[in-house]
Amino acid sequence: MTDTNENPQDSSSASEPALLPSQLALRRVAIDTYRENVAYLHRDCPAYRAEGFQALSKVEVRANGRRILATLNVVDDEKIVGCRELGVSEDAFVQLGVQDGHPAQVSQAEPPGSIGALHRKIAGERLGRDDFRAIVRDIAEHRYSKIELTAFVVASNQGELDREEVYFLTDAMVECGRRLDWQERVVVDKHCIGGIPGNRTSMLVVPIVAAHGMLCPKTSSRAITSPAGTADTMEVLARVELPFGELAEIVRVHRGCLAWGGTADLSPADDVLISVERPLSIDSPGQMVASILSKKIAAGSTHLVLDIPVGATAKVRSMAEAQRLRKLFEYVAGAMNLGLDVVITDGRQPIGNGIGPILEARDVMRVLENDPRAPNDLRQKALRLAGRLLEFDPDVRGGDGFAIARDILDSGRALAKMDAIIRAQGAHPFDRNAPNLGALSFELGASVTGVVTAIDNLQIARIARFAGAPKVVGAGVDLFRKLGDPVQVGEPLYRVYAAYPSDLEFSRQASKRCSGFEIGEAQAIPHLFVEF
Amino acid sequence: MTDTNENPQDSSSASEPALLPSQLALRRVAIDTYRENVAYLHRDCPAYRAEGFQALSKVEVRANGRRILATLNVVDDEKIVGCRELGVSEDAFVQLGVQDGHPAQVSQAEPPGSIGALHRKIAGERLGRDDFRAIVRDIAEHRYSKIELTAFVVASNQGELDREEVYFLTDAMVECGRRLDWQERVVVDKHCIGGIPGNRTSMLVVPIVAAHGMLCPKTSSRAITSPAGTADTMEVLARVELPFGELAEIVRVHRGCLAWGGTADLSPADDVLISVERPLSIDSPGQMVASILSKKIAAGSTHLVLDIPVGATAKVRSMAEAQRLRKLFEYVAGAMNLGLDVVITDGRQPIGNGIGPILEARDVMRVLENDPRAPNDLRQKALRLAGRLLEFDPDVRGGDGFAIARDILDSGRALAKMDAIIRAQGAHPFDRNAPNLGALSFELGASVTGVVTAIDNLQIARIARFAGAPKVVGAGVDLFRKLGDPVQVGEPLYRVYAAYPSDLEFSRQASKRCSGFEIGEAQAIPHLFVEF
Repeated sequence: MTDTNENPQDSSSASEPALLPSQLALRRVAIDTYRENVAYLHRDCPAYRAEGFQALSKVEVRANGRRILATLNVVDDEKIVGCRELGVSEDAFVQLGVQDGHPAQVSQAEPPGSIGALHRKIAGERLGRDDFRAIVRDIAEHRYSKIELTAFVVASNQGELDREEVYFLTDAMVECGRRLDWQERVVVDKHCIGGIPGNRTSMLVVPIVAAHGMLCPKTSSRAITSPAGTADTMEVLARVELPFGELAEIVRVHRGCLAWGGTADLSPADDVLISVERPLSIDSPGQMVASILSKKIAAGSTHLVLDIPVGATAKVRSMAEAQRLRKLFEYVAGAMNLGLDVVITDGRQPIGNGIGPILEARDVMRVLENDPRAPNDLRQKALRLAGRLLEFDPDVRGGDGFAIARDILDSGRALAKMDAIIRAQGAHPFDRNAPNLGALSFELGASVTGVVTAIDNLQIARIARFAGAPKVVGAGVDLFRKLGDPVQVGEPLYRVYAAYPSDLEFSRQASKRCSGFEIGEAQAIPHLFVEF
Repeated sequence: MTDTNENPQDSSSASEPALLPSQLALRRVAIDTYRENVAYLHRDCPAYRAEGFQALSKVEVRANGRRILATLNVVDDEKIVGCRELGVSEDAFVQLGVQDGHPAQVSQAEPPGSIGALHRKIAGERLGRDDFRAIVRDIAEHRYSKIELTAFVVASNQGELDREEVYFLTDAMVECGRRLDWQERVVVDKHCIGGIPGNRTSMLVVPIVAAHGMLCPKTSSRAITSPAGTADTMEVLARVELPFGELAEIVRVHRGCLAWGGTADLSPADDVLISVERPLSIDSPGQMVASILSKKIAAGSTHLVLDIPVGATAKVRSMAEAQRLRKLFEYVAGAMNLGLDVVITDGRQPIGNGIGPILEARDVMRVLENDPRAPNDLRQKALRLAGRLLEFDPDVRGGDGFAIARDILDSGRALAKMDAIIRAQGAHPFDRNAPNLGALSFELGASVTGVVTAIDNLQIARIARFAGAPKVVGAGVDLFRKLGDPVQVGEPLYRVYAAYPSDLEFSRQASKRCSGFEIGEAQAIPHLFVEF
């Protein structure tokens, strides 16, 4: 796909039509600009005044009947792009769908049609359904610059969207992409709003629920800023990038799957918005609700269990905040006709022991295999969520879900279902007794004797990330102590695994600055009252 | 300055220290990324996991004892950057101040220290003086990504900053750069909030005021989104990029100058903020006030005349809005100890006839030379503003300024002063009777007979910009009719000059879509009540 043929200075080769004076030869520049289209124009390009263009926010590149918007970079090196060429970054080149040397034209981009609505939102106005449709369409079609995207995200942040606007936004996001239809009355899914390292309940909930016979076609994301997403962890065990036809067949046969959702064009505007929300660590209630619900509805779910963890270092820090968020999810789900059960959970510390793809896969398999070393908090939480999902089944009595889920897990039916899904997706070699962890490691010892009174989700995630997770699948943090556990001075709190010396060093420095653990007296542990 | 030596694959040449395992050889990548530092890392770089880095917002590049923050692009082409190299964009390379091949290290950038304050502003909180100091310092040191900059601009937009916060912001912006001291009791300046094409009054006001003996060390900006800034127009007549010592000497001898302000490091955060405000067309009152006043105070001004044009296509669209803006300017100027006289002016149409550097220089020289072809509106407006500036002189009676300014202009003393300043700065050849306009041109004819009832500042600026102004100094629009002028069908409204066929075509298409003129009956001309 990424063909880096040398492109001759005179780019009107025999196989390509000759260039008109206003045309340039398109050239793939092998630079990956991370979701931002960039066009590269030589400073001395005779057809266009590169510098005049550059001050403007965007240019429009036309080739092959397609048009994309791009940021313009001016180039002073003919080895990167020649005077009669127009370079485009890797993603942008793929979007144009042409060969190197194809004629292309550039023009000053007209502002996106929805820019008026954007400015009204910036000015604090309430927007209507059509405004959101126009904005979301422009976003999905990559017509917004990073600056305009950020402006939309910030202007519709924190209390700036009322609940009906959140519904309009959600609906517009579903509309502008593909929407799956599984042709069944009940299609279930579970989702966590995120922020808790190690929280791999989906890989337990899906086999339990599918073993019960419910349809659970779970697609997950890869990690963006966390040390592992469900797709990264599942990939340790099986292939997760599946063509849609294959995925649908697996779901038909096995009632469930655990695949990567990135190829399905579900709620494409969401992927674009995330590219500015994540670096900014903005996760406002309105955007979170629209992002999650639009993806689920586009994926064809009819019923959803939503996990909202609460804790001092979780995304949601108080029960009051969790309840406000829950009401917003419920309002929009109701308007969108999605059955929703919100479960507020303990977010005071990571779930399970391992953080990082291989470590988390190990924990998941231990739970499925009823291994005595299985982390009990992961098992209990997965059973609770699976139980709530099972109660969407009209034949399951309210309150019986947990016990049914436990029976499915204890009997080995969940493990059998997981094995079947792994084989169907394409098993990867994985030895749970000798997982292939990073060859380099260090342990962090307790600085005092006492009881673990707090574990900082953010700092533990950061250390795992510095160690190389999720790209280095064997990297991460293995926790030896959890909240309430006693520890003697010098005893290890966790071990960090890495594959590269620079990663090990980054993570060691991070854990030295802040271990992520607090040790004190048992009564200092914060209490948390969550429903069960 | 931009040396594009080939950089060998093995970059530890004899003259450079050998690289440590964590070090890469710095390489200047000849890409001009327009005020955004970009670092280029090969995907297969053995020392760093390029992809893991990329998802994060920024990396920190350290070399030569300096450190810069940069966005990371991943490269798949050894011709752009090799596996043991770290490429940086042109601006970033200059900031590091090293040679190609110098050892450099990369790390994941810590978030800027003020990010907590930024998030509080996004959440709608009021910030204190120290918050603004921290934010402005991080911005000036390029520690904010484009996304974070936009978030700050949008979060402090429209009514989100109270007047004391605007004062804190202004003060912080002055503090974080250089501040000039001219060692005189009265140092005057004038400024227009912008938006009116052709409005080159500074080039008349400075010679008039300096001829009177007041100190007026005027530094101006180049155009960013307009067809010409004062620096672009003055550059037609004289050198404007002057080392500070030379500038100070000119000001000492001639009492005035007309130079480019870009090299002086005055309010550096402002330049960074502008890089996102302009593409977004955000010009909120608070940011405008902080931007303008911080620059003027840093430049050592003690007294300022501020021009606020009002009109349907000006930045300020109603007198009520102009008065609100004026109060905000007055409050902050008072807190900062700056003498301020706000003048609200007619912004219904461009000032003068020419729009574009050479055309505007022609108009200015015609006014100075008392040429009968001089545009009267430009002359009158310049006299009015100069008169208000002259009244900052304790020896000038209130109300006498205009007549004094007129005497200075009519007597030729303003022209003599302008000639002296031009010679001092370094004259450029300019023949005002045969200005070197673009060789290509077209005229736009009236579509009906009537009276000119409206001229759209934005559209005329756009057409001039499309024609190539300001980069092509001879490009632009020469207006033949102004508000209230009668015109017969087919008679030309303006002529557009360009130097390149593609520019001519862009501007012709733009003027066809919308000429920028409305023609109707005289009573349709909007009335405007401005003080005089």
